[in-house]
Amino acid sequence: MVVTTVREALRLFVSERDWAQFHSPENLAKSISIESAELLECFQWDDEDLYSAVDELADVLTYCFLLADRLDVDPDAIVLNKLKETRKKYPADKARGRSDKYDRL
Amino acid sequence: MVVTTVREALRLFVSERDWAQFHSPENLAKSISIESAELLECFQWDDEDLYSAVDELADVLTYCFLLADRLDVDPDAIVLNKLKETRKKYPADKARGRSDKYDRL
Amino acid sequence: MVVTTVREALRLFVSERDWAQFHSPENLAKSISIESAELLECFQWDDEDLYSAVDELADVLTYCFLLADRLDVDPDAIVLNKLKETRKKYPADKARGRSDKYDRL
Amino acid sequence: MVVTTVREALRLFVSERDWAQFHSPENLAKSISIESAELLECFQWDDEDLYSAVDELADVLTYCFLLADRLDVDPDAIVLNKLKETRKKYPADKARGRSDKYDRL
Repeated sequence: MVVTTVREALRLFVSERDWAQFHSPENLAKSISIESAELLECFQWDDEDLYSAVDELADVLTYCFLLADRLDVDPDAIVLNKLKETRKKYPADKARGRSDKYDRL
Repeated sequence: MVVTTVREALRLFVSERDWAQFHSPENLAKSISIESAELLECFQWDDEDLYSAVDELADVLTYCFLLADRLDVDPDAIVLNKLKETRKKYPADKARGRSDKYDRL
Repeated sequence: MVVTTVREALRLFVSERDWAQFHSPENLAKSISIESAELLECFQWDDEDLYSAVDELADVLTYCFLLADRLDVDPDAIVLNKLKETRKKYPADKARGRSDKYDRL
Repeated sequence: MVVTTVREALRLFVSERDWAQFHSPENLAKSISIESAELLECFQWDDEDLYSAVDELADVLTYCFLLADRLDVDPDAIVLNKLKETRKKYPADKARGRSDKYDRL
């Protein structure tokens, strides 16, 4: 079998292990939070470990891609779609150089 | 300007707002944790709100893609690379149908 | 020295190690998130490990108490104070038996 | 009824609303993660909002106390107990002024 995309590679990995049974949307959401915290741990004490950060980011992304597949959405598509909304909430001329929430712009 | 990829679209969005100054790896890691928790909130009380979950997943992914770009790595590539390691830690014949950690297989 | 309260015990522990320098409110907030995720990990895959959960809850509480001390507030007092507000947001007769957010009651 | 402790106040609050049914250990663990992220949000972009931080810390603590009660442990007792172990893992003379993990001291 030739695997050509990340989605296919993840599907094959999961099916070979019969793990789909554990991958409810809720369990994947928990897993994303858990891995995000391991990523955050690379920056816990005013230091930063960027090498480990790449490794942990890969774990977060893996669960995100699994959840996207479970919810039958395309990762790139939902990011681009959300970006459209965010563009409206944060117009460039108002938001430039500011980290305030949209309701304080 | 024709934007053809998610990475380019995100870069343009950030540069138009002069937000790169806020996007240190640490701040992006915090943001990934924060958005992950909003995703988890869709499953807080034995219910599930899958419609909102897609929306929140988009936010988690957005910050993941921004961090990947900041760390100069490709999201798909690091996921596939990590998958190789995970395949070794969880051999299909040992891990099949089990949610145990690799050191308990 | 006789240590009589948790606050005093934590202060002594920190000062013996000269760790106050690392305990900025932000670093403690990150630590609370990190330990919360380790607690969540006890419930990751439809199982539950309550023995480990107690252990991880202790870690979350430790950082919460350190942050409370850093912000010069009393843990019990702020919980009781918040409870007063929550009582108003969730009147017993409206909220009974429902897990909805206050704006949907 | 005279409420004299935080535990009693929380128990009364929950029972008046018939919310114990939602407070499984897992749901409380999720809630602790969710509230921790709201606390972290007070420090998202190199700024800090200590006023809101107290408010969010109260929410984290509330769920921690509810979980402690659900697991039938005393918050102070488990923190003090864990502190004993941490004292051994991080001897003052080795750990002084260092934020390294115990296995790197």
